[in-house]
Amino acid sequence: MTETKNSDMGALLRDKAQLVDSMLKTLLTEQTKIDPSLKQAMSYSLFAPGKRIRSALVLWCCEVVSSSINRNAEIAAAAIEMVHTYSLIHDDLPAMDDDDFRRGQPTCHKAFDEATAILAGDGLLTFAFKALSTHVAEPNLVIRLIGQLAEAAGPAGMIAGQIADLNAERTTPSIETLEGIHINKTAKMFQCASAMGAICGGANDRQLMCLREYGLKIGLGYQIADDILDVSASSEQLGKTAGKDSKAGKATYPALIGMGKSKQIAEKLAHEAVATLGLFGEEADPLRQLAIALVKRTK
Amino acid sequence: MTETKNSDMGALLRDKAQLVDSMLKTLLTEQTKIDPSLKQAMSYSLFAPGKRIRSALVLWCCEVVSSSINRNAEIAAAAIEMVHTYSLIHDDLPAMDDDDFRRGQPTCHKAFDEATAILAGDGLLTFAFKALSTHVAEPNLVIRLIGQLAEAAGPAGMIAGQIADLNAERTTPSIETLEGIHINKTAKMFQCASAMGAICGGANDRQLMCLREYGLKIGLGYQIADDILDVSASSEQLGKTAGKDSKAGKATYPALIGMGKSKQIAEKLAHEAVATLGLFGEEADPLRQLAIALVKRTK
Repeated sequence: MTETKNSDMGALLRDKAQLVDSMLKTLLTEQTKIDPSLKQAMSYSLFAPGKRIRSALVLWCCEVVSSSINRNAEIAAAAIEMVHTYSLIHDDLPAMDDDDFRRGQPTCHKAFDEATAILAGDGLLTFAFKALSTHVAEPNLVIRLIGQLAEAAGPAGMIAGQIADLNAERTTPSIETLEGIHINKTAKMFQCASAMGAICGGANDRQLMCLREYGLKIGLGYQIADDILDVSASSEQLGKTAGKDSKAGKATYPALIGMGKSKQIAEKLAHEAVATLGLFGEEADPLRQLAIALVKRTK
Repeated sequence: MTETKNSDMGALLRDKAQLVDSMLKTLLTEQTKIDPSLKQAMSYSLFAPGKRIRSALVLWCCEVVSSSINRNAEIAAAAIEMVHTYSLIHDDLPAMDDDDFRRGQPTCHKAFDEATAILAGDGLLTFAFKALSTHVAEPNLVIRLIGQLAEAAGPAGMIAGQIADLNAERTTPSIETLEGIHINKTAKMFQCASAMGAICGGANDRQLMCLREYGLKIGLGYQIADDILDVSASSEQLGKTAGKDSKAGKATYPALIGMGKSKQIAEKLAHEAVATLGLFGEEADPLRQLAIALVKRTK
């Protein structure tokens, strides 16, 4: 059942994912000086069948405010996907979550080795900033995009979430603390994706604020859904090891407040996300559908 | 004896190092949202007593072309020091060079743990780009600085050097291959430091080209001197484990072409570095002294 619901989301994302993959290939192919063994490991993780939700968000938010996807948004989408992939590679390392399986294939350090995985992650993170600084057309836009990405992915964002997540293992944090971890670890990158897309589309302040709020809501909802699926779905359905969080003694929404309450909160967040889009007409329908597909996954 | 020679270089760098430390402290202190345990690990490695050569180069090159150090150069110097420190933290990890001792104190993963060290490195790398995008005044300057740094530190630069270095362990590469590894691993970051400083100082094309060339020469010379000192100096003198490279089966200049020839090449590079400075008067004397101090270390 989860599989069907996952494919609802997959269908919604497919076109955008293809566009992102194509831009990622172009950017990597242009780089002829990258060490070949490093490039192989970077490509291995980058082109593993991911859902491309964050990068699709960049493209949709650009489309919502400007009726079309421009090249700057495609570069921004590729950059956020590189940063997301680096975070997965490092997160899966033995010293971190120690996972063998990701996006339906062996993790980077299993397919290559730990040193290569560390460096492939470092390479993707650095390359994301290089791509933005080289390929985005206007200087002011480059700065805003890099500022957003470095803030969301940095030590006050995603990395703060990752370390707090590790530090909370085998403890029972309050639900407020866990919410803070999920916001840092996941929701800020969704928020960043929405903001980058909106900025590329030339959003005004009000549009930007709404889309940032949308990103934060569905990002938190997505992470709670992930907690739920870790308990309820199989490894095959997830493309990564199921039941991993509870085995690692990780704090999750279902562990803290139960499955029923967790599903309610995920649903509430999806509705709140849709409500942030009142400013927009049918051009924002894909964002509304994404919020709904997100909750459907957990049912 | 090496200790005396190291302190020649230390004396030359001291004022600049203080300026860089002060800027690093300002930048980190401003960031109140960084996770505290992460900030502690980042600060631990960042403020370990390093020589600050790369960041001093940024400041000197700015001074050489504009007669003074401006705030943009101070930010760029801090950013390159963050990136250098991240590279040391990751390089010392058990899966990489597996080192317990760096800058005279336990390495980051020994003082904290592996997960924290990986994330502290990731945090410093990301924060460097954040600092440049937020604090450097002119958009065009930000883009040039970020472009230089991401290129030099990225998968076609330092990271390519690190993976090639690991792949060359227990092999006997040609001296040309080893030179390529050293250029990627070390010299490109010195070149980048010179370029960033020159750009902040408003260098013209000819000045920029000369200072980039200077950086590349002393960067390669510095790495060869490092190879020499790994054999000839004690761990106490180095502040890191001595004899490490040969024990790890790493290809080094002394191992490939002998100690005498290695010292000759380091000396030749220092002279060539000085020769690139013909365009400049006595304002470039610190750069000349640095090149000479570099060779003196190995005697």
